[in-house]
Amino acid sequence: MPITLPVTLADIEAARRIIAGAVLRTPMLPAPKLSALTGAEVYVKYENLQVTNAFKDRGALVKLSSLTEAERARGVVAMSAGNHAQAVAYHAARLKIPATIVMPVTTPFVKVAATRSYGAEVVLDGETVAEAQARCERLQAERSLILVHPYDDPKVIAGQGTIALEMLDDVPDLAALLIPIGGGGLIAGCAIAARARNPAIEIIGAEAELYPSVWNALRGEHRPIGGPTLAEGIAVKNVGVLTLPVIRDLVSDVVLVNEAELERAVNLYLTLQKTMAEGAGAAGLAALLAQPERFKGKRVGLILSGGNTDPRVLASIMMRELARESRIVSFRLSIPDRPGVLGIIATRLGSLGANILEVEHRRLLLDVPAKGAKLDVTIETRDAAHAEEILAALSADGYEPAHIEAGLMIE
Amino acid sequence: MPITLPVTLADIEAARRIIAGAVLRTPMLPAPKLSALTGAEVYVKYENLQVTNAFKDRGALVKLSSLTEAERARGVVAMSAGNHAQAVAYHAARLKIPATIVMPVTTPFVKVAATRSYGAEVVLDGETVAEAQARCERLQAERSLILVHPYDDPKVIAGQGTIALEMLDDVPDLAALLIPIGGGGLIAGCAIAARARNPAIEIIGAEAELYPSVWNALRGEHRPIGGPTLAEGIAVKNVGVLTLPVIRDLVSDVVLVNEAELERAVNLYLTLQKTMAEGAGAAGLAALLAQPERFKGKRVGLILSGGNTDPRVLASIMMRELARESRIVSFRLSIPDRPGVLGIIATRLGSLGANILEVEHRRLLLDVPAKGAKLDVTIETRDAAHAEEILAALSADGYEPAHIEAGLMIE
Repeated sequence: MPITLPVTLADIEAARRIIAGAVLRTPMLPAPKLSALTGAEVYVKYENLQVTNAFKDRGALVKLSSLTEAERARGVVAMSAGNHAQAVAYHAARLKIPATIVMPVTTPFVKVAATRSYGAEVVLDGETVAEAQARCERLQAERSLILVHPYDDPKVIAGQGTIALEMLDDVPDLAALLIPIGGGGLIAGCAIAARARNPAIEIIGAEAELYPSVWNALRGEHRPIGGPTLAEGIAVKNVGVLTLPVIRDLVSDVVLVNEAELERAVNLYLTLQKTMAEGAGAAGLAALLAQPERFKGKRVGLILSGGNTDPRVLASIMMRELARESRIVSFRLSIPDRPGVLGIIATRLGSLGANILEVEHRRLLLDVPAKGAKLDVTIETRDAAHAEEILAALSADGYEPAHIEAGLMIE
Repeated sequence: MPITLPVTLADIEAARRIIAGAVLRTPMLPAPKLSALTGAEVYVKYENLQVTNAFKDRGALVKLSSLTEAERARGVVAMSAGNHAQAVAYHAARLKIPATIVMPVTTPFVKVAATRSYGAEVVLDGETVAEAQARCERLQAERSLILVHPYDDPKVIAGQGTIALEMLDDVPDLAALLIPIGGGGLIAGCAIAARARNPAIEIIGAEAELYPSVWNALRGEHRPIGGPTLAEGIAVKNVGVLTLPVIRDLVSDVVLVNEAELERAVNLYLTLQKTMAEGAGAAGLAALLAQPERFKGKRVGLILSGGNTDPRVLASIMMRELARESRIVSFRLSIPDRPGVLGIIATRLGSLGANILEVEHRRLLLDVPAKGAKLDVTIETRDAAHAEEILAALSADGYEPAHIEAGLMIE
C-alpha cells in the first residue's frame, strides 16, 4: 500500500524555483570512459561543482528560505562535521540569518575554518557525533534556535529532489539513478521526483558496507554498523523517520559498497573523468562497479554528490593505485657491501628505464653475510610488464631481487 | 594595419556545426572560490571534460571532417606525445579514417597505450620531438598521408575557436579571456571568434616562462627556451606560421607564468574547484594569480584546456602543498639512546594531536654524544599554528626539535 509521501512533486518543483539563481544548476554529462569500463551508458551529475562542493546547498537553502521573519531573527542551528555545516553556514550568511554550527571536537581544522569563513558561529563540543548532537539540541532549546536537520525535514528532502528534476530534464530516458544513501534525504527527494516523472525508473541506493543502516532497516537484519570509512559523508547510524518510508516505498534496491570499491570509484573519477569525488560522492559509481552486469546496456545517471576529500587522503589513494598497477614497486636486493655497488645498480636501473624514488641500505638483517648487505629500492616503472622486465634483469645480474610491499605508501 | 586572418568568424561558426553532437559542449561555470581569492569574477570553461580530456578534440575533428573521400582512404598522420595524439586517434577511428601517430620513444607508456586503444598505429621514433617530427614528415611523404598539424592549420584553428563562441554564448559580457599559449592554435581561434563578437574583449595569453616562444617573437627578445616544465602541453619551441600573425594582431598581452605559479594553479583547481587540470591547462589561472590587480573586479573567462596530469605528479603537487601549509612537517629531535624513549615521544605526539607518518633513528650523526641519538619524525598537523604548538611542546620537553625539509616529498 503506497504511503503518504512527506513531499510531493509539486513541493520539489517549488523548491526548484526557490533555489534558482542561488544554487548552481550543475552539469549532467556523458562519461564515455566510465561507459566503456562498465558497459552501461553512464551520465554523471556533478554536484561537486556547487559552491560548497556538495549537494547540501539545495536542501539547506530551501529550508532557510521557508523560515518566517521571526524565525530568521532567532537564527538557526545545525550539527555537522561535514558538507551540511558549510551549506547551512554559506546560505544563512547570504540570507543574513545568524547560524550556529555544532561540530565534534575531532572535526578537521580545515572544515572548522571553512565553516567559520562563511560567518557562522562554530561550537566545538563532543567526542562523538551523538555528543555533538546532544549539545545541538541543548543550544536549540536554550536559544530558541531553528534546527536545520541534514535530512529528516520535508524542506530539505524537497531541496535535494531538485537534482533528479534537472537530471531528467537533461537526459529524459534514464533507466536508473544510482544515489548515495546516508540519512536518506538525497535519495528520498530524488526518488519522489524521478518516480513521479517516470514511474518505471529504477532508483538504486548505494550505502557503505560498514554503515548498513538503511539495509538493516529494510531487511530486518542486524549487520554491525561502524568503523573507519572513506565515505564518512554517508556514515550514518540512524535512519531518518521521514526518509525511511520513502525509501521503502520508492527505492528499487540498496547496494552495499565496500571500502575497496569506494576507493576504486574515487580513483576512477579522478583518472578517467578528471574530477574529485569524496568517498560518499563516489558511492553511486562504486555500486555500478560492484554490479556491472545489472546495468549493462542501460542508460544510468550517477549523482556525484560531493567532492570534499582531504588532499592527503586523495594523494594516498592515487599512490596506492600506482602501486597496484606496479607503476611503483619496491624490492630488496642482496648486494656485496663495498664501495661502488650502489653506483652500479643505480646506473643499471637507469638504463632499464626505471626511475628511482627511494633507496635504503639494510645492514642489520641477519640473513645476509657480515660482508653483505640488503638494498631496498623503490622505483617507478612504465607498467607491470616493465616492472617484471626490470626484476628479471636484476635477477640475471645476481642480486636476488625480492618484491616487498611499496615503502612509499603514505597512509 | 590589420592582417588578413587565416580563419574568419564564419569559418568558426561552420566548425561549430561540424562538431555539434560529436564533441562535448563543455560547461562554463562561475568559480566563486577563485573569484574570492583573486578579486576577479571568474568563470571556468571545463575543456578537461572532453572525451580525451582536452580541447584538442575540436580542431582534430574539424580537420578530419574536411578531408575528401580520397584523402580519408589514404589516411592521416600526426606527431604528438600528448593530447593531440589522442584526439586525432579517437576521431579518426570514429570516422573510420586510418591514423598513424608518431611519438618520441620517451613518451610515457600510458599515453602510448591510450592512443593505441583508439585504434591508431603508433610509431615510436626519435629521442626528441624534432626527431619524431622528422619521422612524421618521412611517413607523410612515403605513404601519401594527410598531416593533421596540432596548431598551424586553418581547420584546426577554426575548431579551437568554437570554445570562445560557447563561452560568450553562456556569459556574453566577459571583459577578458585568459588562454594558454603553446603553438598558438587555441588562442588564435579564440581571439578571432571573441574579437569578432566583441571587439573590446581583452585576449590574454598565458605562456610558460621556460618556453617563451611567442613572447620572444612578439618582442624581438631572445630569452632561453627549454627545461623541464609542469606545462609540457605548451612547451613549444616553434611558433606557428599561421598563428603568430593572429596573436600579434588580436592578443592584448602575453603573461609568462613560472613553475611555482603553474603548480599553485593546478593545486587550486583541485582543492577549490574539485577538478583536475594539467599544468598547461592551468596556465590561464596561473596568469590570473600572477597579476590579480590587473583583473580585479573584471569578469574573466579561463579556459581549463586539459586535465591529463600523471597521477604521480598530481599526488606530488598535493603533498608539496600540504608541506608548504605546515600540515605535514618533519623535524629532528635529540634523544637519549635507551629503550622506551620512542614510546614516550610517540605518546606525547599523540596527546598533542599530531598524526605520525614516518619515524627514523639517526645514530651515525657526529653532533650527538655516543650514548645519544637523533630521531627524524614526520607528522601531520591541523595547520601551521598547530605545528608551532607541537614544536614548542617538544622544545619544552628538552628534545631540541629542529625543523627539516619534509622527508615525505614524493618528487
